[in-house]
Amino acid sequence: MSLDGYIARRDGDLVGLNGALREGVDYGFAETMQRTGAYIMGANTYREMVKSGMGGGGGTPTYVVTHDPSPPRKGKVTLYSGDLGALVERVKGETEKDICVFGGGALLTQMVERDLMDEVGVSIIPALLGDGAPFWGKLAGLKRLELAECKRFESGIVALTYRLARERGRGK
Amino acid sequence: MSLDGYIARRDGDLVGLNGALREGVDYGFAETMQRTGAYIMGANTYREMVKSGMGGGGGTPTYVVTHDPSPPRKGKVTLYSGDLGALVERVKGETEKDICVFGGGALLTQMVERDLMDEVGVSIIPALLGDGAPFWGKLAGLKRLELAECKRFESGIVALTYRLARERGRGK
Repeated sequence: MSLDGYIARRDGDLVGLNGALREGVDYGFAETMQRTGAYIMGANTYREMVKSGMGGGGGTPTYVVTHDPSPPRKGKVTLYSGDLGALVERVKGETEKDICVFGGGALLTQMVERDLMDEVGVSIIPALLGDGAPFWGKLAGLKRLELAECKRFESGIVALTYRLARERGRGK
Repeated sequence: MSLDGYIARRDGDLVGLNGALREGVDYGFAETMQRTGAYIMGANTYREMVKSGMGGGGGTPTYVVTHDPSPPRKGKVTLYSGDLGALVERVKGETEKDICVFGGGALLTQMVERDLMDEVGVSIIPALLGDGAPFWGKLAGLKRLELAECKRFESGIVALTYRLARERGRGK
């Protein structure tokens, strides 16, 4: 997200964010992919991934949370419109590896609200977008975090990883 | 601000933010105070400071930007309701030291919008407040930043300092 909390400008222009990503730098994507047994993402993130040629063709099971049956599906992509807690239970039964929720916005916020996340990683891009699609939605109450990692990149990106306190006692 | 960009909850409860500040830790306030020749702040920040016993009594000139003539004034506090660019020019004429804009919200956003800031420091508190008073307001367009410093504290607070690109060629 930008320092002011946006993942994209209203007009969908991602130039402010992508301009800060430098080629050939390891932002941890490879390590994340290796420890991930399944992806959960929203329809917007999935569409962006398909557009950029990344989504849907890989060997890792991917669950796209959406009520819209129209996104193109290939490979191990499953569209899902049910309860998020039930989805997490189901995916846990299918892999021993980590489950990675990709993208921000409404889906991530709902997952945090329901205490379904163990860890949240946010990369802060050195820009103010000014307006647009927010990374975080609104939550009903305070969620305390514990900083696990803080990594500064040459490009000025700061990658922060937090563990979430599981206040309702849900274990992994 | 919290990781989701708030400086306080709607009900004014700052517990989420203050809970992360630990006593006896140097968060850079002392160093900032030493290099500051004048403060500019909004009425809300000033009221919070007065309430906490910090504001208005020090020896450093403080300009409170407000249209409300009621805030209590003591020491070197001046209420100001005019143009922000003119205020910065005036204060530059009064001190050779740095001018520190304290607090977030509408005032900071206007100062950034008008390219009146050289540097912005944001401390990210390890919590999601969920809702409340945002640190950043909306900007008309993208502002590129350059990361100058990234400091991680034991409490999990991450202090980020950015330089602003002065796109309209305003010098200091």
